[in-house]
Amino acid sequence: MAPLPSVTPDTVVPPAAVVLVSGGLDSTTVLAAARAQGRAVYALSFDYGQRHASELGCARRQAQRWSVRDHRVVALHDFASMVSNATALVTQSAIEVPRARDVQDRGEVPVTYVPARNLLFLAYATAWAESLDAQEIWIGANVLDYSGYPDCRPAFFESFRATANLGTRAADGGPQLEIVAPLLNLSKHEIIAWGLQLGVDYADTISCYAPSAAKGSPGVVACGTCDSCQLRRRGFARAGVDDPTTYAVLDA
Amino acid sequence: MAPLPSVTPDTVVPPAAVVLVSGGLDSTTVLAAARAQGRAVYALSFDYGQRHASELGCARRQAQRWSVRDHRVVALHDFASMVSNATALVTQSAIEVPRARDVQDRGEVPVTYVPARNLLFLAYATAWAESLDAQEIWIGANVLDYSGYPDCRPAFFESFRATANLGTRAADGGPQLEIVAPLLNLSKHEIIAWGLQLGVDYADTISCYAPSAAKGSPGVVACGTCDSCQLRRRGFARAGVDDPTTYAVLDA
Repeated sequence: MAPLPSVTPDTVVPPAAVVLVSGGLDSTTVLAAARAQGRAVYALSFDYGQRHASELGCARRQAQRWSVRDHRVVALHDFASMVSNATALVTQSAIEVPRARDVQDRGEVPVTYVPARNLLFLAYATAWAESLDAQEIWIGANVLDYSGYPDCRPAFFESFRATANLGTRAADGGPQLEIVAPLLNLSKHEIIAWGLQLGVDYADTISCYAPSAAKGSPGVVACGTCDSCQLRRRGFARAGVDDPTTYAVLDA
Repeated sequence: MAPLPSVTPDTVVPPAAVVLVSGGLDSTTVLAAARAQGRAVYALSFDYGQRHASELGCARRQAQRWSVRDHRVVALHDFASMVSNATALVTQSAIEVPRARDVQDRGEVPVTYVPARNLLFLAYATAWAESLDAQEIWIGANVLDYSGYPDCRPAFFESFRATANLGTRAADGGPQLEIVAPLLNLSKHEIIAWGLQLGVDYADTISCYAPSAAKGSPGVVACGTCDSCQLRRRGFARAGVDDPTTYAVLDA
């Protein structure tokens, strides 16, 4: 791994940031960017019984690789139970994960949308940030998501920031919280190109909605056909670099 | 218990509401009010290792008494661990619960403030409401809290409502979520008077920040001296009704 650029001299206390880390391509890039900007990172992940739970293994390894100060994995089993009837992304077989971007192309919210997920993630991040005296929450939302997911759009993040600053000590003159979403206006290939510059090992990230265990090895095989796999594959192709992912189907 | 007023005829599907129920005086009154207004109630409680965990027993019994459709108790142990250094209300002995309103009177945020607690509670409630197609979240915040706690003020609730409607399917034309805070401008004695009209059994609610187990009975003894006990005692006195609470100290 490439050495990290050092923005902050060793004698200065680095600014602290809570970074939402899922183990996917986007959030791992954000983690690397926060470290490259000299942030003392507190990584936050969530276990909500997502189909792609192997992401959490990637999140743990990436947090360690990028030398975070602390990494918490919040158990959201109650949340999963509360929203399980309304999403395809929580473990349950009633709703099929779509194999293409058909739904989103029709202007509908995809079935992989999880009710109020980012609202909940950001609420946890705000609580932790306030306790840590950290003034930043970094999140890997980007333009490819926010056409479909309401909780990935700039207007939502801006409104959340205002709400968090009204509902915490910031309202009484404390330091203001910022939501940092550096990928918001980047396409997938731009994210990948930036991450490779930062030294991200994308082989240890997962994007697939329905991965399977690799036979005879500890790794994971991505399906290659779900929305998320297709976005990832096009991203690497357009970035002009090799895709280190193992896909079950390569010619979808 | 007095029979509930029936606002909605039996043949009409009643509007659904998520009601935050702690087992305290305020939220139990809100629960009763929601039922009196004909709402199908989904009660939501949180277990975050609060010092007054016996509240949850009250919450369970009140939810049953008021015939809710469902009652969930969300485990927030990870949250408690994340904020434990920054509040006196989560179980830990490092910070003493204040015995008077001194801090609040000085215009400071009380040490019993829990970072981003209502933001987190409302995020969970929003997720559940969206999954249930419920358009209301009822919460028992009131004027006595919002002078001290930033997350109990009207500006916070108004901002949260806007954020929730930007971050859920409401943003794409779905029904808008409302935050109902019927106690916001009521003083404690007005809340008690209203609750008694609705048939609330206040003997089975807890306000105390530091209750102890009753000797030789299954009940709980309130300290009688903490902020919350003093507010409660003054409320019953000003309402001109008997206070059914058992206090350890009566002449504070």
